[in-house]
Amino acid sequence: MIAPPPDILIAPVVRLALAEDLGRAGDVTAQACIDADAVLRARFVARKPGVVAGLDCARLAILELDPGAAFVFLAADGQAVAAGQAAAKVEANARALLSAERTALNLLGRLSGVATLTRAYVDAVAGTQARIADTRKTTPGLRHLEKYAVRCGGGVNHRFGLDDAILIKDNHIAVAGGIRPVLQRAKSAAGHLVKIEIEVDTLEQLATVLEVGLADAVLLDNMSPATMTQAVAMVAGRMTIEASGGITHASAAAISESGVDYLSSGAITHSSPNLDVGLDIEI
Amino acid sequence: MIAPPPDILIAPVVRLALAEDLGRAGDVTAQACIDADAVLRARFVARKPGVVAGLDCARLAILELDPGAAFVFLAADGQAVAAGQAAAKVEANARALLSAERTALNLLGRLSGVATLTRAYVDAVAGTQARIADTRKTTPGLRHLEKYAVRCGGGVNHRFGLDDAILIKDNHIAVAGGIRPVLQRAKSAAGHLVKIEIEVDTLEQLATVLEVGLADAVLLDNMSPATMTQAVAMVAGRMTIEASGGITHASAAAISESGVDYLSSGAITHSSPNLDVGLDIEI
Amino acid sequence: MIAPPPDILIAPVVRLALAEDLGRAGDVTAQACIDADAVLRARFVARKPGVVAGLDCARLAILELDPGAAFVFLAADGQAVAAGQAAAKVEANARALLSAERTALNLLGRLSGVATLTRAYVDAVAGTQARIADTRKTTPGLRHLEKYAVRCGGGVNHRFGLDDAILIKDNHIAVAGGIRPVLQRAKSAAGHLVKIEIEVDTLEQLATVLEVGLADAVLLDNMSPATMTQAVAMVAGRMTIEASGGITHASAAAISESGVDYLSSGAITHSSPNLDVGLDIEI
Amino acid sequence: MIAPPPDILIAPVVRLALAEDLGRAGDVTAQACIDADAVLRARFVARKPGVVAGLDCARLAILELDPGAAFVFLAADGQAVAAGQAAAKVEANARALLSAERTALNLLGRLSGVATLTRAYVDAVAGTQARIADTRKTTPGLRHLEKYAVRCGGGVNHRFGLDDAILIKDNHIAVAGGIRPVLQRAKSAAGHLVKIEIEVDTLEQLATVLEVGLADAVLLDNMSPATMTQAVAMVAGRMTIEASGGITHASAAAISESGVDYLSSGAITHSSPNLDVGLDIEI
Amino acid sequence: MIAPPPDILIAPVVRLALAEDLGRAGDVTAQACIDADAVLRARFVARKPGVVAGLDCARLAILELDPGAAFVFLAADGQAVAAGQAAAKVEANARALLSAERTALNLLGRLSGVATLTRAYVDAVAGTQARIADTRKTTPGLRHLEKYAVRCGGGVNHRFGLDDAILIKDNHIAVAGGIRPVLQRAKSAAGHLVKIEIEVDTLEQLATVLEVGLADAVLLDNMSPATMTQAVAMVAGRMTIEASGGITHASAAAISESGVDYLSSGAITHSSPNLDVGLDIEI
Amino acid sequence: MIAPPPDILIAPVVRLALAEDLGRAGDVTAQACIDADAVLRARFVARKPGVVAGLDCARLAILELDPGAAFVFLAADGQAVAAGQAAAKVEANARALLSAERTALNLLGRLSGVATLTRAYVDAVAGTQARIADTRKTTPGLRHLEKYAVRCGGGVNHRFGLDDAILIKDNHIAVAGGIRPVLQRAKSAAGHLVKIEIEVDTLEQLATVLEVGLADAVLLDNMSPATMTQAVAMVAGRMTIEASGGITHASAAAISESGVDYLSSGAITHSSPNLDVGLDIEI
Repeated sequence: MIAPPPDILIAPVVRLALAEDLGRAGDVTAQACIDADAVLRARFVARKPGVVAGLDCARLAILELDPGAAFVFLAADGQAVAAGQAAAKVEANARALLSAERTALNLLGRLSGVATLTRAYVDAVAGTQARIADTRKTTPGLRHLEKYAVRCGGGVNHRFGLDDAILIKDNHIAVAGGIRPVLQRAKSAAGHLVKIEIEVDTLEQLATVLEVGLADAVLLDNMSPATMTQAVAMVAGRMTIEASGGITHASAAAISESGVDYLSSGAITHSSPNLDVGLDIEI
Repeated sequence: MIAPPPDILIAPVVRLALAEDLGRAGDVTAQACIDADAVLRARFVARKPGVVAGLDCARLAILELDPGAAFVFLAADGQAVAAGQAAAKVEANARALLSAERTALNLLGRLSGVATLTRAYVDAVAGTQARIADTRKTTPGLRHLEKYAVRCGGGVNHRFGLDDAILIKDNHIAVAGGIRPVLQRAKSAAGHLVKIEIEVDTLEQLATVLEVGLADAVLLDNMSPATMTQAVAMVAGRMTIEASGGITHASAAAISESGVDYLSSGAITHSSPNLDVGLDIEI
Repeated sequence: MIAPPPDILIAPVVRLALAEDLGRAGDVTAQACIDADAVLRARFVARKPGVVAGLDCARLAILELDPGAAFVFLAADGQAVAAGQAAAKVEANARALLSAERTALNLLGRLSGVATLTRAYVDAVAGTQARIADTRKTTPGLRHLEKYAVRCGGGVNHRFGLDDAILIKDNHIAVAGGIRPVLQRAKSAAGHLVKIEIEVDTLEQLATVLEVGLADAVLLDNMSPATMTQAVAMVAGRMTIEASGGITHASAAAISESGVDYLSSGAITHSSPNLDVGLDIEI
Repeated sequence: MIAPPPDILIAPVVRLALAEDLGRAGDVTAQACIDADAVLRARFVARKPGVVAGLDCARLAILELDPGAAFVFLAADGQAVAAGQAAAKVEANARALLSAERTALNLLGRLSGVATLTRAYVDAVAGTQARIADTRKTTPGLRHLEKYAVRCGGGVNHRFGLDDAILIKDNHIAVAGGIRPVLQRAKSAAGHLVKIEIEVDTLEQLATVLEVGLADAVLLDNMSPATMTQAVAMVAGRMTIEASGGITHASAAAISESGVDYLSSGAITHSSPNLDVGLDIEI
Repeated sequence: MIAPPPDILIAPVVRLALAEDLGRAGDVTAQACIDADAVLRARFVARKPGVVAGLDCARLAILELDPGAAFVFLAADGQAVAAGQAAAKVEANARALLSAERTALNLLGRLSGVATLTRAYVDAVAGTQARIADTRKTTPGLRHLEKYAVRCGGGVNHRFGLDDAILIKDNHIAVAGGIRPVLQRAKSAAGHLVKIEIEVDTLEQLATVLEVGLADAVLLDNMSPATMTQAVAMVAGRMTIEASGGITHASAAAISESGVDYLSSGAITHSSPNLDVGLDIEI
Repeated sequence: MIAPPPDILIAPVVRLALAEDLGRAGDVTAQACIDADAVLRARFVARKPGVVAGLDCARLAILELDPGAAFVFLAADGQAVAAGQAAAKVEANARALLSAERTALNLLGRLSGVATLTRAYVDAVAGTQARIADTRKTTPGLRHLEKYAVRCGGGVNHRFGLDDAILIKDNHIAVAGGIRPVLQRAKSAAGHLVKIEIEVDTLEQLATVLEVGLADAVLLDNMSPATMTQAVAMVAGRMTIEASGGITHASAAAISESGVDYLSSGAITHSSPNLDVGLDIEI
């Protein structure tokens, strides 16, 4: 059971989305065409198979407009659903439900899309020790939700931001004057609960990192599976190894065979198609 | 030349994205590894061909962290770029530039992705009178920027929210008791600068809409090209006609041949892969 | 029955008003002089005859400070009330009620003032086809509520902002180089659910607008009733016609006789006196 | 020279007003019809005689959209202007200027309206010792600006909110069990820089207030000028005296002759018509 | 019974503190280690003797994360508690309780620390007419809560900000050109419910203040008790007298013997150690 | 040279503090008594010896009110200053400077107080390998600034919030059913850049932790120096060791002799007295 963020971390996103959709005048169609006290029942139904994520977003979107709405989970976030399967049902004021529909579906569809693509990557590396990790290539404003969706898909989370771990990239190395000085600066600044990872492009760089010895993890950037296999042997368990750079669903299996611990993918958050989820109203 | 939103409408999104990435402690890697007064020059370079959109987001992200940065456009939003082509160059404080990099790229990549996919749809219907329109299936918090990206790709914008036009869908019709009463309610509530569009699933419904005569536009939902051709003939120029529902890049051309005025697509905003744009730092 | 905005669009205004009134220390008088658990019953009573609007604002102001308060509507927004008539009654914690009183009355009084003056204009044009419309000359921060009050008074809403329709004024025409080019630029930018209105000062300009033919509506600026009558004849039903510019309660009837569709008035929102509403506490 | 609030207290109101007017898409008319780099010069001109207040609001509205705009004061807040007189001139980007115009005028018109009506009240009591004070019957969100406008009109400010002085009204007296206990509770809670004022309806109540002796000021509620004259004699300079309740421009002079120190009026803020100010663009 | 601020003034601080602590991902430890539906009971227990203040902060922190939590007061704000004494008990969802714990304790500990130190000062001047007042030397963002804590400790509140009274300090006197002109400027700007206090460093200055006669209160800055005794005699009841400047717990008694009305201390808010309060969970 | 947070992370705190101090009406004393165009020069001077932290807060507070102010650093954050030594000088508009003074000093005094006390702890453990770490016992809203002040004092930062590392405390162990299951749950949830620390009260617990082997660090809670010495021997370099619980300046040296890596102290942030810093104006 994946632990979702508490409502207090989801509600601001839902409110922002509702505000954007309602604008100044609110849902003029519903206000004009629907009686104020009409009530509707509806189901959130997947149109395609996938992995659900974000049901709390849908729940909160409706509750923001009708605090008395009844929302019932028929599936759990992280669960695979078939085409036509309902993930939740709701009974709510008709205007509120129709006004919240698009906000609910936009969030549910996006997060389920992330979870579904993540699951595909996870399945691709099944049978190896490798795990699928996300990146910071997320949608502005939705990072914590998309990272939750990654967990729903079976992936694990990389850094949530620039402040919760040190990740030294090629530019940092270049500006700081090399691997040794940059690692020393990083170590001297890091608190005891902050990990340090460093990106390398070559096995020569990797050798230097191993020699300096201050990093907790190494990121192998855009290496071939064969080179990665060599890298894994060089590291010999002394650091966590992350493979990164242009990893696709097609290439994931081969890379995971190299023995790396993590494959990180930006695509699972920045290029996942929405899962098609609709709201079927019972009339 | 596509008119971008004024900075005052872009800056809140950029600040939200920076806040999300900087967290409480800021960019601990840059603070640890980069000297406070170092300066860098860099270029925003497309890794794949596509249509650029969102350069102002990149500009503002960097300026928020270094108000003295120099940002120069090398391409314009809406312009097609080749793989390897630079869209902008910048000179800025090194910590500021590296801290803003991901925010700038996340926004630029997403919006360029939307513009690129929109352009593909636009090209698919070239030679017909049909235009490509977006929907409200946008990323929460980014709607106005994604709709700008659609314009950069050559598309046109549908409603920005629930409040700037009336769009009567199947559920509204059902709850309100039919096409005639729902159109009458809508017309009676609408101000004189508010247009009314109604969704129909069948030609029988279309006939009723034409008979009632209060709508400015009709949305043909999930009809075959052949049926749409009939619908176009029935309407005979009395209303704007929008085709919608599961339109793909592959099906767009055939649909546009039916004579409809607009093809609206959710996919161009909710399922467009990011355009791969990177920041090449000169060191 | 006028559809009010959903609470989610009213609450931010109410909270801003309460925050402004409570300041840092809250209601020091009530805190000093009233027992923490005292309860009061009270009625919102019109001191002068008028049209009520904004009861939800009063309700939310009290509920923000006492979520357990009981608020009962005795009249509906849009209803005419006599002097001395109660529009609502409430039972609430005494400190909460007295602390919320001014916020509730300020909003209720202003919106009822707008509704009352609008109703007077509406009555003045009764018997013609003309309707009374508002403008964007509203109180900063209260536009959506004042436009709701206009609807309560029997008026209809013009644009809610600069983004939900195109209204071309004299300056746009001048800068863009004339009526024809400005209309062409507008039409080419407008989505299919965006209407275009253009302001004209003379019948010559009107003739050009009719010839170009891209506008949905025309605004006759500061014309005499006689000239407007000519304009109505020229248009002959091809466009919606709005009369604007210095329209007063005294001049409205004569203008409406000209056959225009709308009379728009800034005065109904920017210069309406508050309706005097008080809170009568039962002690 | 009236001290205006610092920009940091004005800017949030201006930004809120701009956000409300620009909506999601911004000024679609200006974006469509005006070239991005066009520049305009214009003047803020009073159409009617009045007292100017709020020029900083107009200045900030334009600067928010064009930080490079040049704004020149031709009059000062608090100054009387004739019909046709320019209060300020500006040179700015054309889109920015046209987009900010309504926000600037709405604020300038309202605040100048408050200042103008206040000045009329001030003139009505000229020659007596009485001063005109405002109330908390202000527009939600604009209180500090409207109170500044009152100062521009020659008035003085009453409480800014519920927290900066103690004002005991009839309901507080009733709930707390009488004038003596309520004043004792108030005095015991008040810090040494917090004044206490108490409302009385009768001379008997006034006598009790004088006997208890803990109040700094007394509010005479809805008394006739004759009764007020008696009250002034009773007080004999021991407390500040405020007359309140239904004071109109017509009744102000007679009331001021009674010898009271202040006449407070809600009408100067809640029912003042906007001063008609326009933006004349030089083309 | 000290009147606490209404929840609407406390909740924003609590939410800000929770947001700061939860960050993007929330409480990863509780999410990982605690079942979603576990429930805990716990008590807020003082580890040292002191005066409690801020129980509402603790209550709201927990309710924000678990709206169904049951929170019971076992002591009241302003009450002295012994080491080991419980001030409140709570039953709540386990994740919510553990996630809110630090926020609740940080606020409760700080405010109780302020109340405890204030009480010590109050006790030090017991038996004289002098009262202990706070200053504006408070924690940014917490002023209204710390001033409430001062009241809980038996102190009284000085100004809440720069806007609710006039306090003329040495620099104002110097820049304005002397005591007489500065007082005249202040009096002419002050509304009738705004008090004026002026700081003096010498008895000569005090004599001038008494001669000018426009101030309600005088602040004796950094005078010896002996000089203050002289000052009290000079004032002879005509103004409120506040002693200020480097007052410590040790010096308070001697100063209070001089006959001044108030001793104001920055230390009670800016240098009070937190009261050690813990959350004892029943397992 | 300690890297300060970027301005974008400091400015919100400064603005909140200014807003709290300015209230609705702003600095009424400065507005009344100081000419609008007066200019002042001043120095921020330490009244007591200490370590400076927070100069950027002072700088931004003044710049928010006078963007043209000139602020010059005379010392650097983290530098020890003597009593009477100036840390910065400024030339600014007089009203702006006097209005910002208290906000600037409140932040500068508090952060310098934290830095000064931290430095004292750091000095107390000098000569050992132990470092001083902070906790989450910080002032709500100021955590990132207080943690920066800790770095200025020579300390290192523990977690910034609940989300950037896993810290398993006694209650987590109890609820989760023991050390082994809780560590397993934590490890399975943690991303590869998230460290795990666990609190132990006894050497038996420590033995279990070492046996399970999934933690990066252990927190020894409230152990005597002798027991800690044993713990250090047991750990033998396999984990980072943090001593915590009631550590005082007096006890720090003895604890550091035990060989632990970190001593964490809540007191350095929650009970540090402000450093007395004043603003000396040149007149």
